[in-house]
Amino acid sequence: MAMDGYRGFLALLVSALLVGFLSVIFTLIWVLHYREGLGWDGTGLEFNWHPVLLVTGFVFIQGIAIIVYRLPWTWKCSKLLMKSIHAGLNAVAAILAIIALVAAFDFHNAMNIPNMYSLHSWIGLAAVVFYILQLVLGFLVFLLPFAPLSLRAFLLPIHVYSGLLIFGTVIATALTGITEKLIFALKSTGYSSFLPEGIFANTLGLLILVFGALIFWIVTRPQWKRPKEPTSVLLQPNGGSTEGVVGARAVNLDNNGDKSDSELNNEVAARKRNFTLEDAGQRSTM
Amino acid sequence: MAMDGYRGFLALLVSALLVGFLSVIFTLIWVLHYREGLGWDGTGLEFNWHPVLLVTGFVFIQGIAIIVYRLPWTWKCSKLLMKSIHAGLNAVAAILAIIALVAAFDFHNAMNIPNMYSLHSWIGLAAVVFYILQLVLGFLVFLLPFAPLSLRAFLLPIHVYSGLLIFGTVIATALTGITEKLIFALKSTGYSSFLPEGIFANTLGLLILVFGALIFWIVTRPQWKRPKEPTSVLLQPNGGSTEGVVGARAVNLDNNGDKSDSELNNEVAARKRNFTLEDAGQRSTM
Repeated sequence: MAMDGYRGFLALLVSALLVGFLSVIFTLIWVLHYREGLGWDGTGLEFNWHPVLLVTGFVFIQGIAIIVYRLPWTWKCSKLLMKSIHAGLNAVAAILAIIALVAAFDFHNAMNIPNMYSLHSWIGLAAVVFYILQLVLGFLVFLLPFAPLSLRAFLLPIHVYSGLLIFGTVIATALTGITEKLIFALKSTGYSSFLPEGIFANTLGLLILVFGALIFWIVTRPQWKRPKEPTSVLLQPNGGSTEGVVGARAVNLDNNGDKSDSELNNEVAARKRNFTLEDAGQRSTM
Repeated sequence: MAMDGYRGFLALLVSALLVGFLSVIFTLIWVLHYREGLGWDGTGLEFNWHPVLLVTGFVFIQGIAIIVYRLPWTWKCSKLLMKSIHAGLNAVAAILAIIALVAAFDFHNAMNIPNMYSLHSWIGLAAVVFYILQLVLGFLVFLLPFAPLSLRAFLLPIHVYSGLLIFGTVIATALTGITEKLIFALKSTGYSSFLPEGIFANTLGLLILVFGALIFWIVTRPQWKRPKEPTSVLLQPNGGSTEGVVGARAVNLDNNGDKSDSELNNEVAARKRNFTLEDAGQRSTM
């Protein structure tokens, strides 16, 4: 587990986990202590699931999903496993985000408040739609074994860029949501008189921003990237569950498990091609 | 001017300029047509300079400053010149941002509205403070010829990361500012009844977000990076106004203009060391 700056990585990871966890706790305290609490009845109690689920799923879990490849103790796990964890965490976040939207729409409808009039709602809905698109496209292209390597290499930098853009947009949307809610709940005079709830929720906004900043730092350090597996692994029949092998297996689907030398050579060639393409991709992944 | 995907770069640059320019125009239309207009008298007219100056300086000009090294027709210009342009644009943006803050504080004070109670104000002030720190530190370390190359190499990835983080934070802050202003100005019932001003300013928010997304795409494509100058340039006595030479000149300040062979060799060595360090730095710059 040789890693350049392992202690620095650990310190940042622990900070990110702490700040992310604290954001979730702060959101819970906000709705349970300062607001009406939680429920599912069309009132403010149902609306309160909106920030709780979004900060938990769309901020915290999405943030962890983004850096999951960077955890050095997972580098011995197969790429396929790590992709599944990445996709799984993002799927959980997507489900929580959808429930959170339902909570907000339910509340609006029950209270006869119009939907989709605010900048918060426009950007937030766009983020959820793009997030689901990203999830489905990512699943089809990177997790299923059918996409050609050239397509994967072409889409990888776009996938990485879109992911980080959506994550940043989600954080910005959270800040507009906190702003909206505080002005509505405290009225502008309550907010501007430094009520404890205003200061508390402002602090939550800062925590979410700092969490985003930590995730961005961790994910953009090239020295903390998951290293490419040595080609030799490939020569062990069951050693490779990486893209290249998956790709080669897809090609060789009509063969049985035993591999001839020439099949192995094909795999090695596919792997090598994949390395180059992945390299081209990764060069573009910030 | 060989560049990988030059047409793609141009298309994105033109889009970014267009969307950024449109954001400024939208902000002007917002304050001139939908709001009271512009003035400097402590009323809403003075406040209106706040969004105009911030979208112009802190969003548009800062965005251009971020991608200025990526313009291929500037690659024949010296690095020192490009750094000066980068610093100059950021200095202009900082001045506009400070005037914009004064406009908001003046308005609050004249209207007896408290200052610094909102999440928008907290994050916005933090962004301005970090932006000025970044500007001063960048000037001292990267533009003045005194900082050792090791310090430059150490700080460059932090400078790039901080710059992009501040830019993203500024965009998020703009979205909270639009949200606040619309709720205050239209009251929440006016905003939620889809008044034209609400839809117009929401669209401004989307434009600002798209501008940010375009700048982030342009600045994170490795193939659009300013190429490192060939070492041979260095052997022409006046050929190098890049970091390495500036560093070497700083060392040789007590010499006159004529360079001995050994001085040239020193320069070459400094340049080579610089290349390596710069390379180390640039690997970390996303």
